[in-house]
Amino acid sequence: MKLTFLGTSSGTPTRHRNVSGLAVQTVLGADWFLVDCGEGTQHRVLQTPLSLNDLAAVCITHVHGDHCYGLPGLLASAGMGKRTKPLKLIAPLPVWEWFEATRRLTDLHLPYEVEHVDLENEALVYDMPGLRIERHVLRHRVPSHAYRVQVETRRVRLKAEALRAVGLPPGPAWRALQNGEDVSFNGETLHSADFVDTQVDTAVAVLGGDNAEPAMLHEACQGAQLLVHEATFTQDALDKVGPGPMHSSARLLAEFAQSVEVPNLILTHFSARHQNGEGMAALMAETQAHYRGHAFLANDLDVYELDSAGKVTVTRA
Amino acid sequence: MKLTFLGTSSGTPTRHRNVSGLAVQTVLGADWFLVDCGEGTQHRVLQTPLSLNDLAAVCITHVHGDHCYGLPGLLASAGMGKRTKPLKLIAPLPVWEWFEATRRLTDLHLPYEVEHVDLENEALVYDMPGLRIERHVLRHRVPSHAYRVQVETRRVRLKAEALRAVGLPPGPAWRALQNGEDVSFNGETLHSADFVDTQVDTAVAVLGGDNAEPAMLHEACQGAQLLVHEATFTQDALDKVGPGPMHSSARLLAEFAQSVEVPNLILTHFSARHQNGEGMAALMAETQAHYRGHAFLANDLDVYELDSAGKVTVTRA
Repeated sequence: MKLTFLGTSSGTPTRHRNVSGLAVQTVLGADWFLVDCGEGTQHRVLQTPLSLNDLAAVCITHVHGDHCYGLPGLLASAGMGKRTKPLKLIAPLPVWEWFEATRRLTDLHLPYEVEHVDLENEALVYDMPGLRIERHVLRHRVPSHAYRVQVETRRVRLKAEALRAVGLPPGPAWRALQNGEDVSFNGETLHSADFVDTQVDTAVAVLGGDNAEPAMLHEACQGAQLLVHEATFTQDALDKVGPGPMHSSARLLAEFAQSVEVPNLILTHFSARHQNGEGMAALMAETQAHYRGHAFLANDLDVYELDSAGKVTVTRA
Repeated sequence: MKLTFLGTSSGTPTRHRNVSGLAVQTVLGADWFLVDCGEGTQHRVLQTPLSLNDLAAVCITHVHGDHCYGLPGLLASAGMGKRTKPLKLIAPLPVWEWFEATRRLTDLHLPYEVEHVDLENEALVYDMPGLRIERHVLRHRVPSHAYRVQVETRRVRLKAEALRAVGLPPGPAWRALQNGEDVSFNGETLHSADFVDTQVDTAVAVLGGDNAEPAMLHEACQGAQLLVHEATFTQDALDKVGPGPMHSSARLLAEFAQSVEVPNLILTHFSARHQNGEGMAALMAETQAHYRGHAFLANDLDVYELDSAGKVTVTRA
């Protein structure tokens, strides 16, 4: 699974960080997903190798503008790029209503279907072979959600020794067995299942929206190798701001991540006040004081890869 | 008058050009105006010295997304920046309806008033001492408008010789006379009007929205020193695309500008297909073949100054 951060600033864009947007690619093909689409997300996509033609779904965590105001422009640009493939919009109902109002009032005509998946009706919002996306409820000023993305990849290895033992020569029959087909040989049926080792690798990442209470993700984080979550403030700043905005501190998040033993943690959605060397160092120090896994502070256009062994590597822009 | 181009691409943003947005400053104070507000306009503002606190009005030419999708985010950011000063939104009704729907559906609460000025009701959309903005109707797929911005500056010079002749010594009384106040001296009243020369400089720029027919601006361009107008295509490209999108070519625009003898012409809103060296050269060659004034092709973050003598100078980003 590969994550490209398209925005890491909370509330408003700053000179070096855009508002929220996160591109998710799996090893399953060219298709990718977008989690949140703040204003300027399409501009960030232009700085990556991603194509709007391959965007399978947009998952919006909540209706606040810094998480969805880029949606109409991005979908319009995909349309002007002659996209015809349908697209899923997985989002709370007000986001869908806003998108519908935008189409109606701004003369927006898309040459492809947009299908709404209503978060409130179903927890399993995307389900196809190898990929499941579930939504989990968070705590914020408006209904807000996290997405738990589970990617299964199968590695099928032939038992070459066993095949040589029955005398089957390497060739098309070997490939057929590897692809799960049974094969006739010397009047006998060779069953695929007897001649292959199948290893299923499961990568699970939990990608949060705005949230005042990381512990809401206790269940979602079971079996997860990676948690991506807002840490808008340091604990000091959060104490000064007060609970009104309903955001998390690095400390709250780190304590939770430690309690569920998720091995990798990426912090994002930083308040402008922390967006300098000192601020970022304070966020990291606070995180490391309460969490013993691998912690990262996301920057715009950072690319994180979660491999099948559960290890995260980062390529900075 | 100072114009900062915040976006010069038509339809979709590209890597080097954003969609439409144009900042207009006058010499009258810190206040500035925005003509159009495509997605990412607030990001471009961050690259200029302009402050959202000083934004007096947003003038939208028409409801298409590349001219207004940046509005909610920009106004939200101004709110998060603690703006309290009211702001005028000069726009067609559907833009206002869309903004209202956005407020209602996306939990957007601004700490300042936004007052709608409906374009269709009145031609004089902004009127204060020294500054008048009028809207003029264009021809496009939806109702589209140009803004004619007229800035009057007064230079008041004292007739120093005449003052010395009556024996008034330089000092506070001189300043009072220059400020239009009458002054008592040696038992007589010295009338300000007798001792000053007032020169009124008028700068007029016409700033167009999307438009298939530049000649719609015949009246607006009377007395104008500068026309800013879309030239989405070369004539060749327009002929291939056909009249459906209802845009102008450089040739159509240049012929019109020549016919009304506007001395300065800035082309903008370029199709992505022309956004390379060859394309820009073709647009300029076509313009110069039909127009004998000063022609410019706008780039993002270019700053154009129109001085009181009607001369335009450009500072490239």
